[in-house]
Amino acid sequence: MNMQNYKCVLSYDGTDFHGWQRQPDKRTVQGILEDCLARITQNKIHVAGAGRTDAGVHAQGQVASFKARLSLDEEELFRALNSVLPQDVRVVSLTKTDPDFHARKSARSKVYQYRICNSSLISPFLIRYVLHWPPPLNVNSMKEAASLFIREADFTAFSSNRLLDPVRNVSRSEISHKGTEIIYTVEANGFLRYMVRTMVGTLLEIGKGKVPAQQIDEIFRRKKRSLAGPTAPAKGLCLIEVNY
Amino acid sequence: MNMQNYKCVLSYDGTDFHGWQRQPDKRTVQGILEDCLARITQNKIHVAGAGRTDAGVHAQGQVASFKARLSLDEEELFRALNSVLPQDVRVVSLTKTDPDFHARKSARSKVYQYRICNSSLISPFLIRYVLHWPPPLNVNSMKEAASLFIREADFTAFSSNRLLDPVRNVSRSEISHKGTEIIYTVEANGFLRYMVRTMVGTLLEIGKGKVPAQQIDEIFRRKKRSLAGPTAPAKGLCLIEVNY
Repeated sequence: MNMQNYKCVLSYDGTDFHGWQRQPDKRTVQGILEDCLARITQNKIHVAGAGRTDAGVHAQGQVASFKARLSLDEEELFRALNSVLPQDVRVVSLTKTDPDFHARKSARSKVYQYRICNSSLISPFLIRYVLHWPPPLNVNSMKEAASLFIREADFTAFSSNRLLDPVRNVSRSEISHKGTEIIYTVEANGFLRYMVRTMVGTLLEIGKGKVPAQQIDEIFRRKKRSLAGPTAPAKGLCLIEVNY
Repeated sequence: MNMQNYKCVLSYDGTDFHGWQRQPDKRTVQGILEDCLARITQNKIHVAGAGRTDAGVHAQGQVASFKARLSLDEEELFRALNSVLPQDVRVVSLTKTDPDFHARKSARSKVYQYRICNSSLISPFLIRYVLHWPPPLNVNSMKEAASLFIREADFTAFSSNRLLDPVRNVSRSEISHKGTEIIYTVEANGFLRYMVRTMVGTLLEIGKGKVPAQQIDEIFRRKKRSLAGPTAPAKGLCLIEVNY
C-alpha cells in the first residue's frame, strides 16, 4: 500500500478545547484527532490544520490534512473517526486528495464569523457561541469601519505578535444585522495571531462612538497595536470555511 | 409594605442542572433562584415553578411565582437577579401580579417541544439540545401517531408513576420537519412525570416501523407502561411556554 493523503473537514464546539494546536496535557482538537487516528490505525499520524484556532474558538469548516497507509476505505475511516471522537468535534467529510495538498499551505482563503448579541439579555442557549454586549452600538459606523479593513496591508497593529511578513489580503469584511445579533464576516488569504478578535475589538470601540470609523486608516498608517481596540473574547468567533 | 406577588418568566439551558426542583447539594434551577432571591432580599423566599422539569430538560418560557416584601421595584429586581444568576439561567421578564396567581396552579396549559436530529451526523453545536437519531424514521407514521395523542384521557401508560388522577387533556400534538430535524410539539393542561419523553419514545418506535400508529389507541385502552416506548433522553426536551 502506498502512502495516501487525506482531506478532512471538521466542525467543533471550541468551548471545552484549549484550541486547535496540540499541547502536552491539554485537551486540544489536533491532539484528540491525532490520538483517535492512532487508536484506529495503530500508527502515529501527524495532522495539519488550516487554521490554528485559539482556546474557545469554534469551527464549522476547519480543514485538516494527513498522510496515512490504511486498510480502511474513506467511508470506513470517516465512520470510525466519528465513533471514537468526542461529541463536541465531528468529521463532516473525509476524502482522498492529491499528494501535494496541505490543509494550511494550500489554502487560498479562510472565512471567519464573529457573533455579538447587542441586547440587555442574552439567551442561555447562545452564551457559549455569542459575545454578550448590552450597551448600544452604532451599527452604521461599524459597517463603514468594517469596509476599511478590505485591503492588502501590514496587519501588525491588529495582532499580538510581530512577524517577518505581516502582510495579509482581506478580501471581505462586512457587518450584518439579524434582530439583536450583529454578525461580522471576514475573509482573507491568512490571518495573524488574534487578528480577527482585535479587528472585532476595534469595531466595538467604533460602535461605542469612542472613535470614528476612519481611525482604521490611521491605525494601518501608524502600525501600532496600542491604537487598535482590545482583543474580543474567543467564544464569539467561528472558523466558517477554508477555500482552496 | 405589603406582601407582593411576582410572576417571573425564565429561560435556561438544563444541561448542567439537576432539574427544576430544589434538592440538597444539587444544582437545581429552583434552588439557585431561591438562593439568589435570598442574597438580594436578605429573606427566605419560596419559588413555585409551573413545570418541574427533569435533569437535563431545557426551558425557554418556564414560569415561576413568589411572594415578597421588597424595597426594589420590578425593574431593579429584574436586573439584580440577572446579575447574580449564573449565565445558564436568565430571567426573561418579571412583573407584579395579583395575589391569587400561582405559577403551577393557575396554568391553563403548557407547551413542550422535543427536537430530534434524524441524520447520520449531528452538529457539535446541537448535541446539548437535540437527540441524535441516525436510523431512518417514517415521519408520516409519526405524524399520524402524534395526532392520536390529542384527547382527554388517562395517560398512566405514558408515565413512570401512578397518580390518583392521571387524566390529562392534550390539545395539541404534532410533528414538524425542518431539514434533517424533526420537532414534536405538545400542549396539555398538565403532564405526568416523564409523559412527554415517553410519548416521544413511543413515536420513535412507530417511526422505526416496529409498531403501527394505531398502537397508540391500544396503549390508551390497556393503560400499560410496558406497551409504550422507552423514555426518550432529557436533552431533546424544552418547556416552550406556559399559558394562563
